[in-house]
Order: sequence, then structure tokens, then C-alpha cells
Amino acid sequence: MTTTRPDAASQPAVDRSDAPANSADVVELLGLVAHLEHTAFVRLANDSAIAPTVGQRLELSRFAAAAVERRDRVLARVVELGAEPEVAMGQFVDVLVDFDERTQPSTWWERLLKAYVGYGVADDFCRIVAEGLDERSREIVLEVLDDASHADLAVTELDAAGSDDGVLTSRLALWGRRLVGEALGVVQGLLTQRPALARLLARSDERTAAANGEQPAPAAAVTTNAPAKVFSELTAQHTRRMSRLGLTP
Amino acid sequence: MTTTRPDAASQPAVDRSDAPANSADVVELLGLVAHLEHTAFVRLANDSAIAPTVGQRLELSRFAAAAVERRDRVLARVVELGAEPEVAMGQFVDVLVDFDERTQPSTWWERLLKAYVGYGVADDFCRIVAEGLDERSREIVLEVLDDASHADLAVTELDAAGSDDGVLTSRLALWGRRLVGEALGVVQGLLTQRPALARLLARSDERTAAANGEQPAPAAAVTTNAPAKVFSELTAQHTRRMSRLGLTP
Repeated sequence: MTTTRPDAASQPAVDRSDAPANSADVVELLGLVAHLEHTAFVRLANDSAIAPTVGQRLELSRFAAAAVERRDRVLARVVELGAEPEVAMGQFVDVLVDFDERTQPSTWWERLLKAYVGYGVADDFCRIVAEGLDERSREIVLEVLDDASHADLAVTELDAAGSDDGVLTSRLALWGRRLVGEALGVVQGLLTQRPALARLLARSDERTAAANGEQPAPAAAVTTNAPAKVFSELTAQHTRRMSRLGLTP
Repeated sequence: MTTTRPDAASQPAVDRSDAPANSADVVELLGLVAHLEHTAFVRLANDSAIAPTVGQRLELSRFAAAAVERRDRVLARVVELGAEPEVAMGQFVDVLVDFDERTQPSTWWERLLKAYVGYGVADDFCRIVAEGLDERSREIVLEVLDDASHADLAVTELDAAGSDDGVLTSRLALWGRRLVGEALGVVQGLLTQRPALARLLARSDERTAAANGEQPAPAAAVTTNAPAKVFSELTAQHTRRMSRLGLTP
């Protein structure tokens, strides 16, 4: 389990006031979300090019175009905050390279499951951290992440394919476990290497605790515990996702 | 030079009235235009994935999304005419496969020039044949083909790159000649194998002649001469395009 300890000395104490989040921190999460949407575009466009039927090619190309539109909504917010979209997004250009190398899908089904499970974890992480953002940025991020309609395609197709093929089902269950392990590794890397995201996560954790009427924890405990909580939340979401497909998580 | 002779026996005489074009013929051209826009989407998405800078990746992904939107405008017209979009577009799935195999670009500049010159010929061909369509279909096709804004990017970048590099300029001029030769081969294949397109082209030729106040030619002459005219028009457009880049056509 990761903590933000390596950066504790150099980073400011957790901001426990209701003041808006540091704008540079906000831009960092927006850059990550924009990069994830851009990655979704590239992947969906590739899927479209190799999909078995013309109908699927059409559908996937529309999803790809929608990802561009979502990314640009996020980048428009980056501009509103006075930052450079290309810089905000460009800093994350390598964030999924290792993940992609370790999780090369060998079949169409593995590709679909990767889209649904692998990037699902990334989306969930951004959703949780977004609770630490100012209201307008948070709204945009949550809206954009809710729009990822290609999940439905993945669920429908995987469900139809898996329901009458026991071998496929157990292979995909195994693949899902690999994907979630690697995806949690990416999240861990982000929290260790990106103090801005760790700060936003701590704010998010506080806001959620306050909304639930819990007592505020001491600042040090927040910084240490928030990552632990995020991993258990991400794992729970993954379990729900796999169950929705009828796969053992 | 190709003629439609192989199909002359089985195909109706050229329709010389002002009656609207045969709806199945119209759907065939719409299917071709939709396929070309879909191909543009796939290519622009690929370009976006490998473009040197984040700025170019963003710009190219937007062009890719715009191609999806243009394709869908054409497919909406296919639906209005009571035909199946997937069938209309799907019949052209192989039309550029040989062309792409014979014109694999080896550099970023060659890719750009291929987009501008290679697909430029296909667009021009569709523009000419579109004159044989009913008014609404023609409007949509011409609007869609006029919107292909990525040409500007290609021109700007190629122009900037070529202006200070004589070796690049002469290599690209050679590449342009190969591209146009192969592209004209594709057009020739379409006119030989697709009587519907040959019929629309003959109608287009008549309409254009009438608009210029020329005497109508005998039906047989139209069917034979229209292809000759289209090749000279396509070559002239290619020359203009290369000159715009400062390349010898």
C-alpha cells in the first residue's frame, strides 16, 4: 500500500479549510482526465478500424468522436483556469505506457474487457479525486466520466459472449484480475509521484467524511489513510463491475 | 481509358430526362462518400496517435471526429432514401486496400501528402459524379466534401517543410506523381466495376454541358466520353493542388 510519505517533507500541510483547491492541483487532475479521454479516443479508433462488422465500426467511431468532445470539455476548463491545455495533458503522456505493455490483449474479448475494467479503474480514481476540486471543475469531470457510454457496448457484448462459453468466462475472469492488479499499480504510481493528486485525494476524503457527518481526522491521518481508502473503494467498484458481467472478480 | 462497355448490355440506356437519378445509384455514391469519410477518420486517428507534438495530436483528433460527423450526415441521407447505411458503406470496404498497399508512406511528410493528394483525387471524383444526383443528396455530398478542413493543415505543414529543403521537395514531387497515378487507377476501377457510378457520371456530364449551354451529345458519346473528361478534370485539379504546395506536378 502506498503512502505519500516520500513527499511529506516537501509538500504543504493538508488544507483543511473550505478554500478552493490550489489551481495548479486542479489543472493536474484535469490534465489526467483529458489524457484518459484522449487515450480512450485512440483506443476506440483502433477498435473501430479492426472491428468485425461495419455496424461495430460505425458505433465505435462515434464513441471515439464522443471521447474527443469530452476531452475538449475538460481542456476548455483548463483554459478557463489560465493554464495551457497541451502542457496539462502532455505531462501524462507516459502514464499508461507500462500498463499497456503489460496488458496486451490477445483477443477481441480481452480488448473489450480491458477497456471496461482497466480504464474503469482509472475513471473511478479520477471520480474519487474529483471530490477535492472546486465545484465547476468537479461538475465537468463527473459529467465527462459519466458519459463514457462505450461501457454499455462492452457489457452487452461480453455478457452475450460469456454466457454460453465456460472456458471463455474463466479466462476472462483471470484476465480481469490481471487488469485490476496492473491498474491499481498505475494509481499507486500516480499517488507516489504526483503530490498534487495526493493533496486533492486528501481534500476529497475530508469532504466525503464531512458529508457523512464523520469527525475530521487529524491531518497526518488523512494524508496516510486516504490512499488506503481509495484502494478499497477501487477494489469494491471492480468487484461490482466483474459481477455485472457474470465474472468472478 | 476505361469505358462501361462490359456492362452495356445489362444496363439501361443513359437517362436523358430531368427525372431524378435512380435511387439505388444515388445510394451507391453516398456509400462511397461515407466510406471515404470513414477512411479519413481512421487515417486521421492514426495520424493523431503518432503525431510528433501534443498540439498536433489534439488537432488531428478533432479532424478525425469531424470526419465521423460528416460520414454520419451522408449516412442519414442513405436512411432517408430507405436504404441500409451499413450495406451502402460496406460494399466499398475494399476499394482503397490496393491503393493503400501500393502507397505506404515512409515518412510523416509522405503521409501528409498522401492525405492531401491521394484522397484529394477521390474527393474530386465524388464531387464531379455528385452533379448527377438529386438536389438534396448533391447538396449534402458537396457540403461534406467542402468541409475536409485537414487539407489546410497538410498544406501549411508541407509548405513550411518544403520551402527550405530542395531534396525533400523533389522527393515529394515524385511521391505526388505516384499517388496521383495510383488514385486515377482507383477511379478507373470504380467506373469499370460500378455501372451505377458510370451512369451518374454520364448524368453529371450532361447537366454540366447543359449548364454551359452546350448541345447535348448523343447518348453513346456521353457514356464513352464522360470518363475521358473526368480524368482530364482530375488531372487538372491535381496540378493545381501540387502547385499550391510549390511542388512540380
